[in-house]
Amino acid sequence: MEELSQAFKALGVLSPSGNTLSEPFPVNMMFEQKILGLWDRMFVQHSSLLAIKSPSLTPAAVFDASGHRKRFVDYVVRDTVTKEIFRADHYLRDWLSSHAGKGDTEGMGLEELSQAFKALGVLSPSGNTLSEPFPVNMMFSTALGPIEGAAAFLRPETAQAQFLNFKRLLECNNGKMPFGSASVGSAFRNEISPRSGLLRVREFTMAEIEYFADPLDSTHAEIDTVHAVVLPLLAAERQGTAGQCEKVAVKDAVEKGLFQNGIQPYFLARAFLFLERLGIDMERVRVRQHLPTERAHYSTDCWDIEISTSHGWTECVGVSDRGTYDLDCHNRAANTRLTVTVPIKPVKEKKLFLDIDKKLFGKHFRGESQELAQHLNTLDTEELGCVKKELEEKGEATVLTGGKEHTVPGEMLGVTLKEVTVCSRTYTPRVIEPSFGIGRILYCLLEHSFWSREEDENRVVFSFLPHIAPVQAAVVQLGASESAQREIVVKIKNILAERGIVCETDFSTASIGRKYSRFDEMGIPVVFTVDYDSPKNNSVTVRYRDTKEQKTIQDWQRVGLEVGDLLLSGHALR
Amino acid sequence: MEELSQAFKALGVLSPSGNTLSEPFPVNMMFEQKILGLWDRMFVQHSSLLAIKSPSLTPAAVFDASGHRKRFVDYVVRDTVTKEIFRADHYLRDWLSSHAGKGDTEGMGLEELSQAFKALGVLSPSGNTLSEPFPVNMMFSTALGPIEGAAAFLRPETAQAQFLNFKRLLECNNGKMPFGSASVGSAFRNEISPRSGLLRVREFTMAEIEYFADPLDSTHAEIDTVHAVVLPLLAAERQGTAGQCEKVAVKDAVEKGLFQNGIQPYFLARAFLFLERLGIDMERVRVRQHLPTERAHYSTDCWDIEISTSHGWTECVGVSDRGTYDLDCHNRAANTRLTVTVPIKPVKEKKLFLDIDKKLFGKHFRGESQELAQHLNTLDTEELGCVKKELEEKGEATVLTGGKEHTVPGEMLGVTLKEVTVCSRTYTPRVIEPSFGIGRILYCLLEHSFWSREEDENRVVFSFLPHIAPVQAAVVQLGASESAQREIVVKIKNILAERGIVCETDFSTASIGRKYSRFDEMGIPVVFTVDYDSPKNNSVTVRYRDTKEQKTIQDWQRVGLEVGDLLLSGHALR
Repeated sequence: MEELSQAFKALGVLSPSGNTLSEPFPVNMMFEQKILGLWDRMFVQHSSLLAIKSPSLTPAAVFDASGHRKRFVDYVVRDTVTKEIFRADHYLRDWLSSHAGKGDTEGMGLEELSQAFKALGVLSPSGNTLSEPFPVNMMFSTALGPIEGAAAFLRPETAQAQFLNFKRLLECNNGKMPFGSASVGSAFRNEISPRSGLLRVREFTMAEIEYFADPLDSTHAEIDTVHAVVLPLLAAERQGTAGQCEKVAVKDAVEKGLFQNGIQPYFLARAFLFLERLGIDMERVRVRQHLPTERAHYSTDCWDIEISTSHGWTECVGVSDRGTYDLDCHNRAANTRLTVTVPIKPVKEKKLFLDIDKKLFGKHFRGESQELAQHLNTLDTEELGCVKKELEEKGEATVLTGGKEHTVPGEMLGVTLKEVTVCSRTYTPRVIEPSFGIGRILYCLLEHSFWSREEDENRVVFSFLPHIAPVQAAVVQLGASESAQREIVVKIKNILAERGIVCETDFSTASIGRKYSRFDEMGIPVVFTVDYDSPKNNSVTVRYRDTKEQKTIQDWQRVGLEVGDLLLSGHALR
Repeated sequence: MEELSQAFKALGVLSPSGNTLSEPFPVNMMFEQKILGLWDRMFVQHSSLLAIKSPSLTPAAVFDASGHRKRFVDYVVRDTVTKEIFRADHYLRDWLSSHAGKGDTEGMGLEELSQAFKALGVLSPSGNTLSEPFPVNMMFSTALGPIEGAAAFLRPETAQAQFLNFKRLLECNNGKMPFGSASVGSAFRNEISPRSGLLRVREFTMAEIEYFADPLDSTHAEIDTVHAVVLPLLAAERQGTAGQCEKVAVKDAVEKGLFQNGIQPYFLARAFLFLERLGIDMERVRVRQHLPTERAHYSTDCWDIEISTSHGWTECVGVSDRGTYDLDCHNRAANTRLTVTVPIKPVKEKKLFLDIDKKLFGKHFRGESQELAQHLNTLDTEELGCVKKELEEKGEATVLTGGKEHTVPGEMLGVTLKEVTVCSRTYTPRVIEPSFGIGRILYCLLEHSFWSREEDENRVVFSFLPHIAPVQAAVVQLGASESAQREIVVKIKNILAERGIVCETDFSTASIGRKYSRFDEMGIPVVFTVDYDSPKNNSVTVRYRDTKEQKTIQDWQRVGLEVGDLLLSGHALR
C-alpha cells in the first residue's frame, strides 16, 4: 500500500492528504476527461441518449416528493459524554470484528441496529455509553435566496432532473418510447466519516442514464448485440457464506430468468464492455445483485458491478430497476402527468361514470360543494365501484375529503356502467438506471494498472491503455541536447501532436534508463528514442512500456503511420 | 422579444418558465459542449494550461482568508411592513428611472446608498418605509458533516482552488514561471432577485484561467501574435456621459499604456478571437474597463468584454488583474508559502540581523520569552531599523505583541548591519484572471444568430456557424418516403455521420418548403435534397441556410468531400 501511494504521488494523482472532497490534480482531470469521453461514445453516442446538464441545487419539494428527505438517511450513534458521532452500521461492524468475530451490518434497519447495540453492550471508543441509533439525512442543505430563502438541497444523484423533465425529453425524442436520457455531473453526499482517496468522498462525479420503458414491454431492442458477453454473476440467492460467482453468457442468464427485464442485463453487459475497454482487470470484477435489505428506497431490484481493490469489493456501477416509483411520486406530489399516452386498437370497455345533480348538490353542500365534487371526479374505477355498491345498498354514499366525512344522498349522485370505446392507453414509464461512479472507476483503474518489474521491485509501471493514458508517447534522444538529434525529437513530437497524441519530451541529462523508468511511472505506452545515428540513417527506436521490447522504425517521418493509429486506439501495444 | 422567445422554444433551448437555476435542455447541453470544446482548444490546448477540476463545496476558512465572507456582499433594503427584500442598487435604479430620471447606481457603497434612499425618500412598492440598506452575503452556505458540520460555502468562482493548489500546479509545470491553470465548472451565487433566462441565474458554468506571473515581469511571451487584433476599447476615463469606444489595435493600445501589464491585453485579444469564432456579432461587442467603484474587492484593474443584447450590455468575459491579493491572503491566513523562489546572480547586500542574549532574555521575560522572541524574529527590515534606532537612542526597545507592550533592555538585544550574499529571490506571483460566463455567452450567441427573412418575418433563422450548430446538416427527399430515394438519404446521412457530422432526416409528408423552414429554425447550415432523378443520375441538391442558394452536387457519394470539411470548420457556408 505504501508502494502504491508513492506511485500515485509520482504519477500526480489523488491526494496524499486524504481530503474528503475531490482533489484538483491536473492528471486526475485528464483521466476523468478520457473516462467520460469513452463513456460518452459508448453510451450517449452509441445509443443516441438525450444528454442534459442540470443544476446541483434542487428545491426541497423535489426531495419531499422523491422520498429522499425522509428516507435518504444513515443511522448514527452518539457518544453520550464526548458527543462524538459514529455511523452505526460501520461502528458496529468494526466493533464486531474486534470483539465478537465478523458480522455483516450493511443494510441493517433502525430496529435491528438498536437491538444489536443493546444486546452486545457496545460502548464508544472512549468507553462511554452510546445513544440510541437515530437517522440523519445525507443531503447537504442550503437555501435559495440569501435571506429567509427557500429550503434546498444539493442533489445526491443526477436522476431527479431527468425524471422532472421527462415530458420535455419525450418531446425531444419525437414522442417515441422507449428512450434513455443521460446526465454527467457532481453529486453530493454528506458522509459522516468519509474515508481517504476517491472511494468515499462528499462530492463526486456521476454519469447516470435513465432509461424509460413501457412497463408492459421491458425488453431491450439491442439485447442480442450483447448476448455473447459473459458476466460473473452473483445473484442474491447465491450470497450465502460460500457464495461464488457463476460466469454466465447474457443470453443464458436472460433465458434462465435471472433478471426481471431485458434492460438491466443489456446495460450491465455494456458497462462490462466499457470497463474492459478502460483497462480494468476483468478477472477482478463481479456483478452482484443487491440483497432485499440493502436496496435504496426507490429500487425494486439492483445489480452492482463491483471491482476488487486493496480496499475490498468496491461498487462502481449500479444498474437499478426503479420501477415506476419516481415518476409516480412526482405525479402524486405535483400537478404533473409524467406519463405516456399511446394509441391502441380501439376496444369496447365497460366503465363506471359519475353523475352528479349539480343543482341539488350545490344546495345541499353549499361552500363545500365544489371541493367535494372535484374529489368525486378523481375517484378511480375501484373507488367508484364502492360508491356504487353503497348507493345501491344504503341509498347514500359516504365520502371522505379534507379529513371530513360527508354523506351524499342518492338522489343527487349516480354511478352508471356505460360501454365506451377506448382508443388509447396511458401509462407511467418504468425506469432502469445505470449509474457510474467515475472517481471510483478511476481509482480501480489506477490500482489495476499498477505493477513492479520482476527484476527490480522499485521499478514500477502503470500499464494504461494508450487511449486512456494521459500522455501517450515520449520522445527522447541519446546524444547531447543541443544537436541534430534534438531537431528530430521536436519534429517527431509535432508529427504525433498533429494526430492528437499527447507527447512528453525530456532533454535532461539523466541516463536513458532513468528516463525509461520515469516514463513507466507515468504510464506512457511507448518511447521513441532518437539514436546517435538517426540524423544519418533516419531510423528511430520505439520501446514498448509493458514488455520493454525495442523495435527499429526505418524512417522517423513515418512514426505517425507506424504507431499513430494504435496510440489512439483501445489496444495494448506490444 | 415575443418572436425571439417563440424561436427559442422551437429551437429547444432555455426555459419558458424563467427558472432561476440553469435549465436542463438537451440542446443547451449540445451548445455548452461545443462552446467549451472551442474554449478548451483555444485556451487550454493552445497555451498548455494546467486544467484542474475542483470541488464546489469549500470550507469556510478559505473564504475567510480570501475576504469573500466579509466582502462578497450585495446591499439590500427591506419593506418594514411586508418584510419583502430588494437589492438596494437595482431598486434605487428602477425607482430613479420612474421618479427622477435615470441614474447610475451600480457599485454604490453602503454609505452612498443609505444617503440616496434617505435624500430621495424612496418607498417600497407597497408605499411603506424601507429599512436602512444592509449587506447580505451572496454565497450559498451549508455544512460539511451531517450533524454539527463545519461551515462551508458553495464556491462563487472556481478561482480559489487554483490559488490554494498553486504549489502543486507549479510543480506540475516543472517549477517554471509564468504559467496558467484553468478550471471549468459550476459557480453559485445566491442572487436576491434572479432574472429569467441565462443572464442572472444562481448556478452557472464558468470557465476560468488563472495566469501566474512574476510581478516584476508582467509581459506575455505571445503578445505579438495578437498585435493586429483591433479591440473596441472603453477605458475608464472615457466613460463619461458621451463615452464612446475607440477601436485600437492591441499593439497600439499597449504602446499607449492603456494596460498596466501585457497579460490582460493578450487574453482580451484571445477572448475576442474566441467570441468571433463562436459567431458572435463583433460589432455588438465592447471591451470596457471597470470604474474604480465597481471593482471586486480582490481586483486592482479589470476589463470586461461586454456583448449587447436586447437586455442591454451584458458582461460575458472579465479579465481581472488580481495582483498578489489572493496568494497574499492565503499566505497570511494559513501556514502556506504560495510563493516562488528563483535563483538570481549573487549580489552582496547589507542586511540587519537580530541578536538576542537568550539567557538574559529568558530570565527577564520568563513565560512570555518564547512568544516575544518569535515575534522579534519575524520583524522585517524596516521594523528592525526602528528597533535599532530606539536601542541607540534610548538603550532599550519597545515591542508590541499580543496587544501588550514590552520593554526590552539593550543589554539583551542587538541589531547589527552585516553584509551577506543573496543568491535567490522569493516573490508572490501576480495573478491575471480571464473568466468566462458560458451561459451568458450562449445567450448572446443565440440572440446574435437570430433573424427573420425579409420576405416573411414569420420565417425565422438561426445562423449558427457549422462547427457550433447542434445539428450540422439535414438530408431529405422529394418523393414518397418508401423509395429508392430514401436509401440514398440514409446513405448520405451515414457518410456524414462517419465524419462526425450530426445529421437530421425528415421522412414526414410535409412540403419541402415547410421542411426548409423547420431546418432554418433549428439553425442547420445545409440541407441535402435527394431529387426524383437522384437514383438515376446520382446528383443531389445542397441548399445553404443563410442565402437559400442551391447548388447541384453531381455525385452524392462525394458529399463528404465536397462539404464535409467545411461543416466541421468555423467558416460560414455560402
